[in-house]
Amino acid sequence: MSRETAFYLDSQTPRIISQCEAMREWVQSAQRAGKKIGLVPTMGALHEGHLSLVRAAREECDACVVTIFVNPTQFGPAEDFEKYPRDLQSDLDLLAPYGVEAIFAPSPPEMYPPGFSTYVEVEEISLQWEGASRPTHFRGVATVVLKLFQVAPANVAYFGQKDYQQTLVIRRMVKDLHVPVQIRVCPIVREADGLAMSSRNAYLSHDERQAALQLSRCLKKGEELVGQGIRSSAEVLTHMEQTLIASPLVQVDYVVIADPETLQPVEQIDTRVIALVAARVGKTRLIDNAFLEMPESLPS
Amino acid sequence: MSRETAFYLDSQTPRIISQCEAMREWVQSAQRAGKKIGLVPTMGALHEGHLSLVRAAREECDACVVTIFVNPTQFGPAEDFEKYPRDLQSDLDLLAPYGVEAIFAPSPPEMYPPGFSTYVEVEEISLQWEGASRPTHFRGVATVVLKLFQVAPANVAYFGQKDYQQTLVIRRMVKDLHVPVQIRVCPIVREADGLAMSSRNAYLSHDERQAALQLSRCLKKGEELVGQGIRSSAEVLTHMEQTLIASPLVQVDYVVIADPETLQPVEQIDTRVIALVAARVGKTRLIDNAFLEMPESLPS
Repeated sequence: MSRETAFYLDSQTPRIISQCEAMREWVQSAQRAGKKIGLVPTMGALHEGHLSLVRAAREECDACVVTIFVNPTQFGPAEDFEKYPRDLQSDLDLLAPYGVEAIFAPSPPEMYPPGFSTYVEVEEISLQWEGASRPTHFRGVATVVLKLFQVAPANVAYFGQKDYQQTLVIRRMVKDLHVPVQIRVCPIVREADGLAMSSRNAYLSHDERQAALQLSRCLKKGEELVGQGIRSSAEVLTHMEQTLIASPLVQVDYVVIADPETLQPVEQIDTRVIALVAARVGKTRLIDNAFLEMPESLPS
Repeated sequence: MSRETAFYLDSQTPRIISQCEAMREWVQSAQRAGKKIGLVPTMGALHEGHLSLVRAAREECDACVVTIFVNPTQFGPAEDFEKYPRDLQSDLDLLAPYGVEAIFAPSPPEMYPPGFSTYVEVEEISLQWEGASRPTHFRGVATVVLKLFQVAPANVAYFGQKDYQQTLVIRRMVKDLHVPVQIRVCPIVREADGLAMSSRNAYLSHDERQAALQLSRCLKKGEELVGQGIRSSAEVLTHMEQTLIASPLVQVDYVVIADPETLQPVEQIDTRVIALVAARVGKTRLIDNAFLEMPESLPS
């Protein structure tokens, strides 16, 4: 085994790996030693949401790999690829308490070789909502996630529910392409006041940070109304939209109550549904979601 | 190890596997035993071309898997998916002398689960020639080959040069998506009279079988002229086309002299080039190709 790929399971310091070949050797060597490997793919700018994925991976697997890569192909041309926060040292400091065994931090040319021209497209589930607002976003996500699954062929991969549609895209891709990895989706982690954790929250001014609360409040409103037994999506959505636009800084992209598998809008709520919301707060685009649970005492 | 996935390396009879999960376990179990696995993906209707790939895999690897699957996604709506020859027993008989360890013969629903919607697209290199004539062909090829590489994660995979553009698509995909498999391309196998072996040759009537010879004759003409030192592609192509249309049963799709990496047409032949030809003979579409080598004595 080369020095680059030596397997430092017992080290206090995680191994930082930047080459695909070395990353794969590390994972395979750990697997040969009987370890179950958990993968946490991130774009860095880590927050408690990411750290909850790391904790889950540490609990459920024998070794954990965190990938840190701001993936250019999932940003649209007018989006925030350039200004997306990048601070590897701060990410390493945040990960330090968790005893992560390896961190994969490749350069863009390492992940996208010259002449790169292969994309993974998950049709249908990618078309609506985020896919409608960001036409090449899920193609970029599916492509980079498949690449990461080839480079770091982990046993389990962890994703956050905050990017709910993304988790459906990835599950579909893994099933359709027979990728041998188990997908685990962990709950949204929120600030004390309800704002869903996101690396993009760092873009918000003081006033925008306050206005951004309307997203989680709007979902809360939906949970309340459905919990009270209201079954008409239109009625619930009216109140949710009113909550969302209560701040003039918020510009709605979409609010929808949908089937959790297909993401098709639901008219009559008579099963478990998911509410998805996307809005611009100032120049920052935020998303959030929540399952809306019907009261158990009502007949379904 | 379950009975379904037992590893029959020493058996005279190849194991026929129809489930993806069992196929992967078989390959991984063999690899854990230190075996290097060679994969020969086919659509069945085996001929000497396929068998040459099997021989190469047997020589270079410790165990060989042949896949037999007529892949629906690489056929266009007006193409010959339905009538494509299928005869598993005849394929097994042809493979019998080679001591192939496993044959993967999945059903279409096993390879394409309900709701399937994920495709692998290799852009650029897929656009021209075969891609122009068969718009979704290479998407179907790239998708199924990636799936096979996930299901049967072999060390080396074998493809025939007859589908030259396909080999470039697959090489590009493997590089771009970091799939850990080595690609080997084996020479075209021809009938005694020069016709490139193809499962579709079975469609040809007696007269068409004779007319089909114009494809290899046209390539031979190109080899001769370039071997004589002619450097103008236009001049060489004129003679090649004349040869091709010498039979009235032949309808030309394309003839081109191209760069072997990019498949861009070459005007002046001053390096190794490839000639690609596609034509319809009666209702049967055939392709063929050859590298055109310049005379060594000429300055390049």
